[in-house]
Amino acid sequence: MSSQDQTTPPPTRADYPHTSAIPTRWKDNDVYGHVNNIEYYGFFDTVINAYLIREGGLDIHGGEVIGLCAESHCRYAAALAFPDTVDACLRVGRLGGSSVTYELALFRAGDAAAVATGWFVHVFVDRQTRRPVAAMPPRLRTALQALQESPS
Amino acid sequence: MSSQDQTTPPPTRADYPHTSAIPTRWKDNDVYGHVNNIEYYGFFDTVINAYLIREGGLDIHGGEVIGLCAESHCRYAAALAFPDTVDACLRVGRLGGSSVTYELALFRAGDAAAVATGWFVHVFVDRQTRRPVAAMPPRLRTALQALQESPS
Amino acid sequence: MSSQDQTTPPPTRADYPHTSAIPTRWKDNDVYGHVNNIEYYGFFDTVINAYLIREGGLDIHGGEVIGLCAESHCRYAAALAFPDTVDACLRVGRLGGSSVTYELALFRAGDAAAVATGWFVHVFVDRQTRRPVAAMPPRLRTALQALQESPS
Amino acid sequence: MSSQDQTTPPPTRADYPHTSAIPTRWKDNDVYGHVNNIEYYGFFDTVINAYLIREGGLDIHGGEVIGLCAESHCRYAAALAFPDTVDACLRVGRLGGSSVTYELALFRAGDAAAVATGWFVHVFVDRQTRRPVAAMPPRLRTALQALQESPS
Repeated sequence: MSSQDQTTPPPTRADYPHTSAIPTRWKDNDVYGHVNNIEYYGFFDTVINAYLIREGGLDIHGGEVIGLCAESHCRYAAALAFPDTVDACLRVGRLGGSSVTYELALFRAGDAAAVATGWFVHVFVDRQTRRPVAAMPPRLRTALQALQESPS
Repeated sequence: MSSQDQTTPPPTRADYPHTSAIPTRWKDNDVYGHVNNIEYYGFFDTVINAYLIREGGLDIHGGEVIGLCAESHCRYAAALAFPDTVDACLRVGRLGGSSVTYELALFRAGDAAAVATGWFVHVFVDRQTRRPVAAMPPRLRTALQALQESPS
Repeated sequence: MSSQDQTTPPPTRADYPHTSAIPTRWKDNDVYGHVNNIEYYGFFDTVINAYLIREGGLDIHGGEVIGLCAESHCRYAAALAFPDTVDACLRVGRLGGSSVTYELALFRAGDAAAVATGWFVHVFVDRQTRRPVAAMPPRLRTALQALQESPS
Repeated sequence: MSSQDQTTPPPTRADYPHTSAIPTRWKDNDVYGHVNNIEYYGFFDTVINAYLIREGGLDIHGGEVIGLCAESHCRYAAALAFPDTVDACLRVGRLGGSSVTYELALFRAGDAAAVATGWFVHVFVDRQTRRPVAAMPPRLRTALQALQESPS
């Protein structure tokens, strides 16, 4: 799957149908003065779940179906530092019956080149049993399908 | 100092000369489904330091003078939950020669009542010795003085 | 309440009936090379809740009564840095019908002087309504009473 | 590179020459009641850097050579939840002139099956220029070589 990040040419914002601007926080910076590598995954998790809640009907507090992370990956190309704002860009790669692979890129606000690219797999499971559902809810699927189309 | 939070009437955004909108992140929510109490201090740290960097000339990477937290406090009145955006509101209470006490309030975007109030003390120290400086840099002081004035 | 931190003589581990050793993590360090101020509250939350789960019967996943933070405070005396281990020391100050004020001190492993002291108020509420319960569960109360006694 | 996690049979602690026990913290749990996916990368970063500091002479505060994350990956097999302790197990896969690929597995204390496996690439760079060094310091290389050997 890592070949997904090795596509050429390099990604641009136009390759992603959904973007969310996330301001960095003081604590994102680590001892080396830049945003720590683990925070990038937090940006992934945030842009994905905010989209699922707002567009896909995901109810994180009481819904029967929730999305759990099964695998994730990030390649770091450049640094971010507080107080930068990061544009977190999202599209859907593979869309299965109960799982989805998101593809993501992060850009510093105003910059053309991505600081990082990655992917993230959600498996949709029953909240109680934590077993994959037979099929994800229709509204969720529709929202994810909308991210398969190029915005251009 | 805690009497600062017990002022009546309850705080409004108009009581604070500086506000920054901070979107919550997925990981801010804890097991109880709301933003964890420690993240509120992260909002404090973020609105304070972004202001110092942008308005006060604070150079967090190489400047000779840095601000260290000597004391902090928060009173929680209501809950926030991802994907809420929080308005982090800032003013300066006491301004000393080498230290400052900030007063803060957090509001959920769109709400009139604060979800939390708190205060936070910065002592400005020499980066190498970590001892308080005799006087904070003039540009920093000017920026802090601007937060002592009511915005109305 | 802040007079609680101003007691003399300075606190020692022997003043606290419960201690938990918490290794720092890479990401605790911020841009200034020491553990960020907000992480101290994470140490508080961790020693408190681990104790409530293990000794007080707190069921964070499904129990009817949960503890929410109503107020917290920390005074910072010295720095910690990854990979230090911190001894998080806990006792109970005021124990009410539905709330408790914890008093805490943090020590670097091997050091006699505390790096920080603080307090933290839990209000025990009904999980659904988030309203304070009339009385905390007996097992929880017994566990908290055990932290009112000096260990010596 | 992802084939590294697909080795059969499943990993055991004996496959890793270095292990560090990391207690979970209250804030590791997310809204779904288990340790959030991004914290797993924090465990990776912690076991790696603690080893480099203690065994490899890494000076994170002032050393000329520092390690930056170029790529990371995690596959999640099962859940952890506070207050579990996690055993973070580390070995070295590929060791280059200025970079290293670590292979990691996380186990809940007392369990035989891993909850997650992953890998993490460090590039060693000059602290000022952030450009890869020609060769990593000898003491660091020796420490990393020691993690290439199976502990059995």
